[in-house]
Amino acid sequence: MLIVMHPDATEDQIKAVLDAITALGLKPHPMPGANRTAIGITGNAGPIDPGNFDYLPGVAEAIRVTKPFKLVSRDLKHEDSVIKVGDAAIGGLDLAIIAGPCAVETRDQTMEIAELVYSCGVKFFRGGAFKPRTSPYSFQGLGLEGLKILDEVRSRFGMKIVTEVLDNESVDLVEEYADVMQIGARNMQNFSLLKRVGQARKPVMLKRGMSATLDELLLAAEYIMAEGNYNVVLCERGVRTFADHTRNTMDLSIVPAVQALSHLPIIVDPSHGTGRRDKVIPLARASVAVGANGVMVEVHTHPERALSDGPQALLPDMFRQMMAEITAIYRVIAEARPSPRE
Amino acid sequence: MLIVMHPDATEDQIKAVLDAITALGLKPHPMPGANRTAIGITGNAGPIDPGNFDYLPGVAEAIRVTKPFKLVSRDLKHEDSVIKVGDAAIGGLDLAIIAGPCAVETRDQTMEIAELVYSCGVKFFRGGAFKPRTSPYSFQGLGLEGLKILDEVRSRFGMKIVTEVLDNESVDLVEEYADVMQIGARNMQNFSLLKRVGQARKPVMLKRGMSATLDELLLAAEYIMAEGNYNVVLCERGVRTFADHTRNTMDLSIVPAVQALSHLPIIVDPSHGTGRRDKVIPLARASVAVGANGVMVEVHTHPERALSDGPQALLPDMFRQMMAEITAIYRVIAEARPSPRE
Amino acid sequence: MLIVMHPDATEDQIKAVLDAITALGLKPHPMPGANRTAIGITGNAGPIDPGNFDYLPGVAEAIRVTKPFKLVSRDLKHEDSVIKVGDAAIGGLDLAIIAGPCAVETRDQTMEIAELVYSCGVKFFRGGAFKPRTSPYSFQGLGLEGLKILDEVRSRFGMKIVTEVLDNESVDLVEEYADVMQIGARNMQNFSLLKRVGQARKPVMLKRGMSATLDELLLAAEYIMAEGNYNVVLCERGVRTFADHTRNTMDLSIVPAVQALSHLPIIVDPSHGTGRRDKVIPLARASVAVGANGVMVEVHTHPERALSDGPQALLPDMFRQMMAEITAIYRVIAEARPSPRE
Amino acid sequence: MLIVMHPDATEDQIKAVLDAITALGLKPHPMPGANRTAIGITGNAGPIDPGNFDYLPGVAEAIRVTKPFKLVSRDLKHEDSVIKVGDAAIGGLDLAIIAGPCAVETRDQTMEIAELVYSCGVKFFRGGAFKPRTSPYSFQGLGLEGLKILDEVRSRFGMKIVTEVLDNESVDLVEEYADVMQIGARNMQNFSLLKRVGQARKPVMLKRGMSATLDELLLAAEYIMAEGNYNVVLCERGVRTFADHTRNTMDLSIVPAVQALSHLPIIVDPSHGTGRRDKVIPLARASVAVGANGVMVEVHTHPERALSDGPQALLPDMFRQMMAEITAIYRVIAEARPSPRE
Repeated sequence: MLIVMHPDATEDQIKAVLDAITALGLKPHPMPGANRTAIGITGNAGPIDPGNFDYLPGVAEAIRVTKPFKLVSRDLKHEDSVIKVGDAAIGGLDLAIIAGPCAVETRDQTMEIAELVYSCGVKFFRGGAFKPRTSPYSFQGLGLEGLKILDEVRSRFGMKIVTEVLDNESVDLVEEYADVMQIGARNMQNFSLLKRVGQARKPVMLKRGMSATLDELLLAAEYIMAEGNYNVVLCERGVRTFADHTRNTMDLSIVPAVQALSHLPIIVDPSHGTGRRDKVIPLARASVAVGANGVMVEVHTHPERALSDGPQALLPDMFRQMMAEITAIYRVIAEARPSPRE
Repeated sequence: MLIVMHPDATEDQIKAVLDAITALGLKPHPMPGANRTAIGITGNAGPIDPGNFDYLPGVAEAIRVTKPFKLVSRDLKHEDSVIKVGDAAIGGLDLAIIAGPCAVETRDQTMEIAELVYSCGVKFFRGGAFKPRTSPYSFQGLGLEGLKILDEVRSRFGMKIVTEVLDNESVDLVEEYADVMQIGARNMQNFSLLKRVGQARKPVMLKRGMSATLDELLLAAEYIMAEGNYNVVLCERGVRTFADHTRNTMDLSIVPAVQALSHLPIIVDPSHGTGRRDKVIPLARASVAVGANGVMVEVHTHPERALSDGPQALLPDMFRQMMAEITAIYRVIAEARPSPRE
Repeated sequence: MLIVMHPDATEDQIKAVLDAITALGLKPHPMPGANRTAIGITGNAGPIDPGNFDYLPGVAEAIRVTKPFKLVSRDLKHEDSVIKVGDAAIGGLDLAIIAGPCAVETRDQTMEIAELVYSCGVKFFRGGAFKPRTSPYSFQGLGLEGLKILDEVRSRFGMKIVTEVLDNESVDLVEEYADVMQIGARNMQNFSLLKRVGQARKPVMLKRGMSATLDELLLAAEYIMAEGNYNVVLCERGVRTFADHTRNTMDLSIVPAVQALSHLPIIVDPSHGTGRRDKVIPLARASVAVGANGVMVEVHTHPERALSDGPQALLPDMFRQMMAEITAIYRVIAEARPSPRE
Repeated sequence: MLIVMHPDATEDQIKAVLDAITALGLKPHPMPGANRTAIGITGNAGPIDPGNFDYLPGVAEAIRVTKPFKLVSRDLKHEDSVIKVGDAAIGGLDLAIIAGPCAVETRDQTMEIAELVYSCGVKFFRGGAFKPRTSPYSFQGLGLEGLKILDEVRSRFGMKIVTEVLDNESVDLVEEYADVMQIGARNMQNFSLLKRVGQARKPVMLKRGMSATLDELLLAAEYIMAEGNYNVVLCERGVRTFADHTRNTMDLSIVPAVQALSHLPIIVDPSHGTGRRDKVIPLARASVAVGANGVMVEVHTHPERALSDGPQALLPDMFRQMMAEITAIYRVIAEARPSPRE
């Protein structure tokens, strides 16, 4: 923490701040400048709440310095984390592709799409059985029936299942059927749910909230890890801005930003990130080029019949084209970049 | 829904869209223009998913027209809703003031603050027993012990208790102790929790999410009402923008915007909305002046010892000053405005 | 400036940073902490560019401390500035009302509106002769002819004229006819124009850019003052966010934020701030309640014929209602608040 | 335009709207629905101002349909525009690389950087002689002296010069020395300057404003083209959001969005887009992968001495690495994508 005093702060006011710091068992470092005095603080184990100081007379500003996360941090673990999912993995040398419909709608629809994506070499199948919908009158998912269909996809194709968990009550059920449990953007700061999946054993994919900062995303992951589940994958899915040409604005710079601060893998979801089918392929290419560990996309064989998010689902030919293009780009990236930090 | 065709859409493409509309049991209204054709759709019961059309060849855009909410809407209920809370109310002729500490920290702290706000005529006491915190290492609230302290505040001062509920598991417990259950901004789209409090009987205060649109806020309220709990109060608490001089940016225009579309009362929380003590009074005045049904603020007798959000809590003298100023402004507003819509 | 080192920065890296600071003639203050070392810097006359340090090995972050503005700052001038405009003023004890059409369209329209607002006690008349329009095909203003109509308004009613200046070439012309020259939001960082009006003698009203931070707004004013024109009025007119229920999102918290840092007066424009007629009155009330020195609104006697921004112009009855309401609120504010800082 | 009536609009109100449409010489298309009536409008040459209708009794909303741009539109010109710059080009088959320092600081610094980027095959050299700076006390550029240094770079290396023009007064001078005139983000809606460079003959690179929508960017280009200069290159350079891990948030989805609506080429500037050196390479890769026609980056041989934006300039080795990586990715893209639309 750095305390910046007003230019006209008195000696007594400065002294009172120094005393307040000492009273908390911390060490003050006064730095008198030409116009004003700043006071550095050391000796703290974790971050200090600026609220301890900024009400004191003469204080202009209290600036945080220490980052508030631990387990997610590269300071603690230098090498990249690789999240093992059975014989597959997210992070590490391979590009993880997660594909499937937005929602599991029927057995036939799901199998048809599963067959398509499997034939393109995909190892992770996505599909929602419990759907978070903005309106209470929209299709809310098939629930257990949907999970059973996903189970059949795994049995038949060997793909790992990625599916969303919406609340504490369904964690046990979803964990039974899923290989990776997804926490949606709207639940990124549902701390109760984060703690609950932190007690589960299956890996968790945590999507960035629509207006979450980098620190908030990492702290949400910290909630999960603090409960003992270290298998966390982050996911950028677009943030909310004034821009109106896409449903959300993809913030691809968070990929290298996460990689600098954290050892956790991060993937990108250009389907929700753009909300428009014709933007998914270019943004999937960009996601791989920026260095993401994987891409998650929605695919549908009959988007006109989709019960949710039809407009953003790739058609079969588009999906094949995307796979070809991102595979070629990943090869370039993989050659260019240094081996994963170990 | 309005379908706008590309300028170079062919007659066959237009016909295919008309057929697709008819196939869904809806009625198309083609409007050929100088450059392009638009097609209106009627006959729908609720909103139509643009995904049904925008993949069709020749379609440039599919524009939503019908608003997706019902129970929250003034179209359904013209007169203003007044949420009764025992012998107090939110909405209607009185300005509701909700005041207290961010979190219940100790019995003594809570009683001291309760005494202060009660002496200023406050009818609703706020204080968190379960706290949603960005970091897992921050103080998470006293839980049941905190609820019991709030119960004592009610017994002693007769103030109604407003406190947050974080997850489905604690709804029963919180409902037992609270007069109004608060859903925090981070849980505004925790649909599972919205449904659960919709099955409760106590009124719900729903805070706007940090990047929620007006429609999303109203649809979140719709989730609660669709389960049978019609006692919903909305709360603006600032949204997230690029602006860095306050913790959030207060969007006061949502107050008249809500009042135009919905019969539900709406209050404003300038403590979280600004995050800085010295901005709370001016923004509380503005909240009343814009026409809000109430104001919720944080007050602390010893903010330097507060375990959360100390920097935004009003000191006792500031709170008294705020009460005097907003009361005077509310008198002006109440005289000027027409009687509540009935 | 505060330099924060990586936890694993070596002694040599720390020493290199200390040397680099000394080499710039500044004084380093190393503060070794439990996990990492921070280094304060003093001795600088103005802000230091973080670019001087953050490329050095071992540096995690370089944090700015010194605020980069001078002439606009309360550190330099404690008392509130009152901008004199002939026998009227912006700032000080009176609430300044600036009203009129978005654009000067015809002599008749302008006179009719002028008569209306004058009859309500307005001292400042607004109206654009040069209009910044998003599309090159929209009405661009009457130019000189418009200025002459404004001149007639001044002669006939004695109101002061506030009108926009779009480029350096027209500064002389606009200064000849205007009492206050307005710099629009899109030109807030047109530094060439800021310098040019800084050399003029007439007061300047500077509107906040659509995504300008508080610091940027104050630095734009600093550009004008640095050239010698100290008569600057700031204006909040809404910022751009994801929210879609108004054209812009009004950020009223900037009013107390400006007042804390700067001695310059600040007014609010709820017409552009909301873009919707039915939101203007509530937000005008809120603007006065938050403590603004004035309000600027658009009024039109025949908005259906307006050549620009018709949807946000108040109708005559609405304008009269607004005047009554904000006058009553201002009386409350004026009584409550301490006398202007002198 | 589509007019949506309130559910309780009367027959007379609907008739009044139909009459108002007819009175403007347009054709109304009423569509009575189950709950409310919508009215389509055709017969308009350009966009209609919603202000003509939304004040009428019974009108709930007036929705724009027609896009307001012409010359920039693919509707008018189907094939991709290639902007010729002497024997080089932006758009078309080659990836355009524009590199150089943020500002021209000294002859030696400029030549050293020019030599570096030339040796990597770069055809366009960037460097500011007139600098738009947030603070009036920051380095404002060398002016004419800087332009002469750029002239020497062109003579010596044959690279084309891209440099910013800040105001109308310096357009003639900059046009004399530049091959491409850059309009900065802060001037994107400086309509006077847009018109002035529209009358020039040299190509213009137009940077997206920090909170400009896609439509606003295209309309700014339309201003230039409407004056007769059709040689316009667009440039994405990041937008302003709540995210704080980069200086701006890059919105790469605007690249395919522009390409869908417009024939103009678009490049990306990851240096300003991220503001941090270590993010430039990943985002440059992503920019090429998303399909941009080029990349503009800042390079500095001694960033610690840079007078502006040092923290975002690539060091020589980083620049070489970036060139290798984006060239390889461009090869993949070029093979995968269909030939340019012709």
